[in-house]
Amino acid sequence: MVFLGSVRENRMATRVGKFVRKLLEKRQHTVEIVDPKALDLGEVIQPLHFYKDPSEAPAILHQLNDKIKKADGFVVVAAEYNSAISPALCSIMDNFPPLSYAYRPSAIVTYSMGQFGGIRAAMQLRQFLSELTTVHMPSMIVVPKVHEAISEEGDATAEGPLTKAAESMCKQLEWYAHALKNEREAYGIPK
Amino acid sequence: MVFLGSVRENRMATRVGKFVRKLLEKRQHTVEIVDPKALDLGEVIQPLHFYKDPSEAPAILHQLNDKIKKADGFVVVAAEYNSAISPALCSIMDNFPPLSYAYRPSAIVTYSMGQFGGIRAAMQLRQFLSELTTVHMPSMIVVPKVHEAISEEGDATAEGPLTKAAESMCKQLEWYAHALKNEREAYGIPK
Amino acid sequence: MVFLGSVRENRMATRVGKFVRKLLEKRQHTVEIVDPKALDLGEVIQPLHFYKDPSEAPAILHQLNDKIKKADGFVVVAAEYNSAISPALCSIMDNFPPLSYAYRPSAIVTYSMGQFGGIRAAMQLRQFLSELTTVHMPSMIVVPKVHEAISEEGDATAEGPLTKAAESMCKQLEWYAHALKNEREAYGIPK
Amino acid sequence: MVFLGSVRENRMATRVGKFVRKLLEKRQHTVEIVDPKALDLGEVIQPLHFYKDPSEAPAILHQLNDKIKKADGFVVVAAEYNSAISPALCSIMDNFPPLSYAYRPSAIVTYSMGQFGGIRAAMQLRQFLSELTTVHMPSMIVVPKVHEAISEEGDATAEGPLTKAAESMCKQLEWYAHALKNEREAYGIPK
Repeated sequence: MVFLGSVRENRMATRVGKFVRKLLEKRQHTVEIVDPKALDLGEVIQPLHFYKDPSEAPAILHQLNDKIKKADGFVVVAAEYNSAISPALCSIMDNFPPLSYAYRPSAIVTYSMGQFGGIRAAMQLRQFLSELTTVHMPSMIVVPKVHEAISEEGDATAEGPLTKAAESMCKQLEWYAHALKNEREAYGIPK
Repeated sequence: MVFLGSVRENRMATRVGKFVRKLLEKRQHTVEIVDPKALDLGEVIQPLHFYKDPSEAPAILHQLNDKIKKADGFVVVAAEYNSAISPALCSIMDNFPPLSYAYRPSAIVTYSMGQFGGIRAAMQLRQFLSELTTVHMPSMIVVPKVHEAISEEGDATAEGPLTKAAESMCKQLEWYAHALKNEREAYGIPK
Repeated sequence: MVFLGSVRENRMATRVGKFVRKLLEKRQHTVEIVDPKALDLGEVIQPLHFYKDPSEAPAILHQLNDKIKKADGFVVVAAEYNSAISPALCSIMDNFPPLSYAYRPSAIVTYSMGQFGGIRAAMQLRQFLSELTTVHMPSMIVVPKVHEAISEEGDATAEGPLTKAAESMCKQLEWYAHALKNEREAYGIPK
Repeated sequence: MVFLGSVRENRMATRVGKFVRKLLEKRQHTVEIVDPKALDLGEVIQPLHFYKDPSEAPAILHQLNDKIKKADGFVVVAAEYNSAISPALCSIMDNFPPLSYAYRPSAIVTYSMGQFGGIRAAMQLRQFLSELTTVHMPSMIVVPKVHEAISEEGDATAEGPLTKAAESMCKQLEWYAHALKNEREAYGIPK
């Protein structure tokens, strides 16, 4: 499951999302993209678990929550806003109870048009994702000068650090997803 | 100028905003509250400085930017979302060019209904506000159990750490606001 | 394997270390404490992996590195120094190559004599531990007013949030340690 | 006053320290370097303000504290250890009470041999320095590939982003140092 974290005009998230989708599909994974720009979240005024009567929550929250709970792993694609996590990403992920993400691994992808590739947002994401109770992979994809590094079609414009980092991150995410799935299926999760 | 950072139903930001307003008005300051819930930001799809032709930006962005540039100091009132800055705060402040905030001081106010009072969001705000080029005060107001500590009318329910922290923060903010205003008026700002 | 992160006089790390040891031993784990105050690290002037000829590195670094590589999981016990990770902890753990910690889980324990229990250091540890390539548990033990909460003998002075958090963290750490060990033994680690 | 933050063999801090000294002296500032590698801190086992009887604290702590209290501003030169503040920097600065740094500005300089220039440590420093009650400048000097960017003599190997950032940071630090000094001399500091 891949979360996109920008709703701006001319956002780079579209191409980075395509890059991640291709990357994962080439490795035979089923990919579900959660794109806050494509979803109609106008009725969402509070997280799902804040409704006293969950049946009053908008249907879209229930649908997404069900998908999250079934996912084997997560990839979050985050823009950086003045060194902070992009609000759209924080906002969409925060709508669901931490337990929905629990005992599954996640991977961080950040980008920027500058030289640091959003790594400051990545650092804040380590705190945020841990609170959501997913364990995030040490390996990340951090993309400086994203407008040059990834084409509009979502392809890396060159073999190099980006393609290497992408491969490392995938291997790690797969390894953890496999380990945790086995454990969940054999023993359930701690109470 | 006071920024509120929540648009949720039943938000605590309303009472904390009142608390801050009373605190500052009692000290003879003119207070302007920027409340993303009260503003109509529906047309805002990117920051003011991202428009190639600034005259195409919604009028609300121009109006707020003018006010920011005239302010002598800022107070940001932030909720914490899973240890991150509340998206509404990041989103509203990010709409303006860093220079609009430059060479003015800011103060951080966080709150939560738990025991840590949003201090994790405060840590991320130190990074975010610095990127916006305002200098933020060492003294903060961090309010654990905000629903008990501050009444709906915006009053502290007891004398104690909260009222002391509020006074310290105000003194510090006033001291810096005065120092920086003098310097700006006497010498302008660096080019 | 438990890392202590303070070398100061009258440090609270001693009692917190005892608390963690008792906690883990009661659950039948073999505990190895790495205490920078007890070790003679006077000859260590750079990390093990910075020596061009590893055989020139002090023996103590080789011994510790071997133990780290064999551990099934880590607990880090950190003091907070002005919201930062205590230098002794950063310093001791940084002496070993990230791969020595890889594909094993870790758990964060922080404490302070104030009300926030070192949670700011915990946030920085999430970044630090990820760089060391261990995955850290979402559940943490954060101990405010540590001098009251834990006795000199290392016992919680009351049943309550501390003992609950300790149990949650242990269950989570055990679950992950088991999952990752199985995966390592069955498939090795990614290359 | 310039704090160096590394005591390792072959440290890059030496050249970065020279770079900062030259930068400041060219602008007619009196520079005092605090170098933990050159100081004999062997007797220091706790911060100055932790001694019940301050007269029992090592003389070196008193000497440094007096200098800190007289300084008009600070520059901290930090290495990055797995995304954290280098322990030597945290350790040396933490020895003095926050008030010794209060109402004076500081500037952050980080470096690394990699592509991100220590910017993750810079983010943690924003939290740490605020706790020490100094206000840190929005402008920083972040030096990727420091071994190529700065010569052993402490000179930038090329005009470019580094020299521009250095000039911006100096102007900002000077502006704030001047503003705050005027305010201190005219009104004292808040009680």
